[in-house]
Amino acid sequence: MIPDFRKAPTAGIYLDNAASTRMHDEVLEAMRPYYLNQYGNPSSAHSFGKQSLSAMEDARGLIAHYLGCKSKELYFTSGGTESNNWAVNSRKYDVIISSAVEHPSVTNAIKSTGAKYEEIPVDKFGMVDLVFLEDAIARNRNKNVLVSIQHANSETGTIQPVAKIAEIVHKYNAVFHMDAVQSFCKFDWKIIDVKADLISISARKIHGPFGIGALYVNSDIKVNPFIYGGGQENGMRSGTPDVPSIVGFAKAVELTFDAYQNRGEDIAYYCRHLWELMNGYYENVSRNGNVDSMLPNIVNLTVPDIDANLVVAVLDAEYNVMCSTGSACSTGKGPSKTLTAMGVNTKSSFRISMSPFNTEDDMLAAYEFIGKAMEKADKLGNV
Amino acid sequence: MIPDFRKAPTAGIYLDNAASTRMHDEVLEAMRPYYLNQYGNPSSAHSFGKQSLSAMEDARGLIAHYLGCKSKELYFTSGGTESNNWAVNSRKYDVIISSAVEHPSVTNAIKSTGAKYEEIPVDKFGMVDLVFLEDAIARNRNKNVLVSIQHANSETGTIQPVAKIAEIVHKYNAVFHMDAVQSFCKFDWKIIDVKADLISISARKIHGPFGIGALYVNSDIKVNPFIYGGGQENGMRSGTPDVPSIVGFAKAVELTFDAYQNRGEDIAYYCRHLWELMNGYYENVSRNGNVDSMLPNIVNLTVPDIDANLVVAVLDAEYNVMCSTGSACSTGKGPSKTLTAMGVNTKSSFRISMSPFNTEDDMLAAYEFIGKAMEKADKLGNV
Repeated sequence: MIPDFRKAPTAGIYLDNAASTRMHDEVLEAMRPYYLNQYGNPSSAHSFGKQSLSAMEDARGLIAHYLGCKSKELYFTSGGTESNNWAVNSRKYDVIISSAVEHPSVTNAIKSTGAKYEEIPVDKFGMVDLVFLEDAIARNRNKNVLVSIQHANSETGTIQPVAKIAEIVHKYNAVFHMDAVQSFCKFDWKIIDVKADLISISARKIHGPFGIGALYVNSDIKVNPFIYGGGQENGMRSGTPDVPSIVGFAKAVELTFDAYQNRGEDIAYYCRHLWELMNGYYENVSRNGNVDSMLPNIVNLTVPDIDANLVVAVLDAEYNVMCSTGSACSTGKGPSKTLTAMGVNTKSSFRISMSPFNTEDDMLAAYEFIGKAMEKADKLGNV
Repeated sequence: MIPDFRKAPTAGIYLDNAASTRMHDEVLEAMRPYYLNQYGNPSSAHSFGKQSLSAMEDARGLIAHYLGCKSKELYFTSGGTESNNWAVNSRKYDVIISSAVEHPSVTNAIKSTGAKYEEIPVDKFGMVDLVFLEDAIARNRNKNVLVSIQHANSETGTIQPVAKIAEIVHKYNAVFHMDAVQSFCKFDWKIIDVKADLISISARKIHGPFGIGALYVNSDIKVNPFIYGGGQENGMRSGTPDVPSIVGFAKAVELTFDAYQNRGEDIAYYCRHLWELMNGYYENVSRNGNVDSMLPNIVNLTVPDIDANLVVAVLDAEYNVMCSTGSACSTGKGPSKTLTAMGVNTKSSFRISMSPFNTEDDMLAAYEFIGKAMEKADKLGNV
C-alpha cells in the first residue's frame, strides 16, 4: 500500500522540507502508547521497562534494515547535529578533511576539535574535487585521518560520488564519515552502496519527530563514547533513550522511504518542471547543483537581479508560500557558504524543498506566486 | 485549578516514577500542534519558523519562571544526562569534586574528562560530609575547581544541604553544579534558595516527554558550548531545537509543580505510611535516607533477610506492581553505589517512587502485594 501522505492541513504551501518536515499522522499514533501507556524506562528491569526496550530494539532493527546494517551498528542520538559532532569526535584525529559545502554541524564541530582541518573545494556544480581530496589524504597518510563528506547537500540537493570517495579514503586507511541527514529515505541506497564507516541520519527531515537521530558505526571501527552515564546504547551514548521518538523514527523511515519509492519521480518532476517554467518565462534562470546527481525534492534557483531574501519574505507574508534562501541553520549568518563555494550569486538564489505531502498544484501555485512576489519585491526594492 | 492527574490507565500499579513517568495527557495535547500543524524549524525566517521560535521562547520563559532565572540562562538539551555531561565539561577544570552518591551521568562524565576526581563521602543518612567537602575545595584553592553535588538522590530521595554547599563552594571561587533532575517540581524551591551556578533538569521525571532537558547557566559564569553547529541556543548547544518536546516540557513543569503543591503532602504521607505499615508488621524495617530532608515521593526500604531483586521481580510478574531495587541507569551493574556509600544492605533494599498519578489505594495495595511477594520470594529462594 502506498503510504498516505495527504496534503498537510496548513493555511499555506510549505516548501521548506529540507529545514523541517510535517510529522506524518501515523508517526504520532505510533509514538502515543509509549508516552501514555508503556512509559517505562527501557533500562528498568520490570515489564514496563522490558516493553520499552523491546519496542526500541524493534525500531532499531527496522531502521538498520532500511540502512542495510546490523542493529548493533546503529546508535540513537538527539539528532543529526549530535551525530555529526560525535562522528567528528569519534576518535582523536590528527587531521580532518572535509568539503567546502558541509553543514555547520560538521564544519564547526571539526573546528572545535583542535585537529588540523583541510577543506576540499567543489566545482560549479557543487561536486567535491576528488583529485584534491586524494592529494589531501595522501599528504597525511601517516596520520590519524577522518574524511567527512556529506551524501547530499541541503541547499542544492547535489549528491556526492560517495562510493568513489569511500574507495579513496579506504585506500589510505582513513575513516569515512558521511552526513546522510538529507539523503536518507529520499532514494534507494544502502550502506553497501556508499561504504561509509560512520553515517549520520535524522528523523526530522523525513516526517518523524524532532530531537532524534542516529549514528551508524561500522562494527569494524572502534570509536569513543560521546555522552557518559548509565551506559545506554552499549556504553556509547548514555541517557534514557527517547523510546517514543525512536518508535516514531522507525515509522517515519518506513513511510517516507516507501513514499519516495512511489512518488520520488513525481516530486523530482515538480522540481524540474518548476525550473523549466521559471526558465521559460524569465531570462537566464539557472538551477544550482548537479542535475545529473541530485535529490528528488530540492530545486535551488538563481534568478538574475532579484533580491532573493525579499522575494522569499514576500512569498511568506503575501502568499503563504514558505521556502528559504539557504539552510535554516545558517539563517542570519551571512551568504550561503555552499553557493559561495560553487561561485553562485547568493543574493539572487532561493531554495524550494518539497516532500510527499506536496502536489503538482503546490508547484504550479508556487510558480505563480514566485512571479507575483518577484514583481512586488522589485517594486519594494526600488522604493 | 488542581491539575487533573487521573490514575494512569495501565494494568498495574506503577511505582517506579524516579526512573520514568507517565506523560500527562495535556502535555501530549500541547505538543501535538508542533508536530502536525506548526512544524517549522525555529531557525527558519518564514512564519512557520517564527511560530516555532515563539512557542519555544514562551516555554523557555515559563520554565525559567518556575526555576527563578532569566530565560537566557536556560539552555535546552536532550535530557538530564546531557545536561550533566555538559556541566562537567562546561570548562576545562583541573579538579572536579563530587559525592559518593551521584548519578552515573555525573560520575562517569567526570572520569572521562581527565580532571583530578575527588569523591566526598556521605553519612549513613546519605548526607554529604561538609567538613570533608570544604577540606577538598580548600586543598585545591589555586586550581580551576568544579563541585558537582546533586540536589536530591534518585534512590533514597535525600535532599542535600545545597545552600550550605553553595556557600562553601563560592567562598573558594569554585563553580557549583547541582543535578536537580529528581528534585525539580517536587517541592517549591527556586535558584535563589540553592545558589548553584549550573543546574540540570529533565522533563522525563515530571510527566513530560523523553529526550528533553535543560541546563541552567548563571549568566555571570562563562561556559564552553557542548555541541557545535548552526549556533542554536545562543551558540551553546547547536542542533534543531525539539520544539514539540520543549513545549511539552513547559506544560509538564506547570502541571507537575502545581500537582506537588497540592498533593505533595499526600504523596509524602503515602510514602511514610507505607514504611510505618511495613515496620509495624515486619521486624527492623528501615527507611533509607534522611527522613528530615527528603523528596515527598520516594521511599527506600530495607527489610532484613529478603532478596530484594527477587521480591521486585515477583511483585512485577505476579502482582503487576512495578518498582525497583535501584536506579534504572544502574540496572544489571552491581549493587547500588548510593546505598553502599551509606553502609546500607543493598541486597535487601528496594525503592518505591510515587507520582501524582498514585493514590492511597495504590499504596495500600502495594503494602499487601509486597507482603505476598516477600512470602513467595522466600519460598522460591529456599527451593
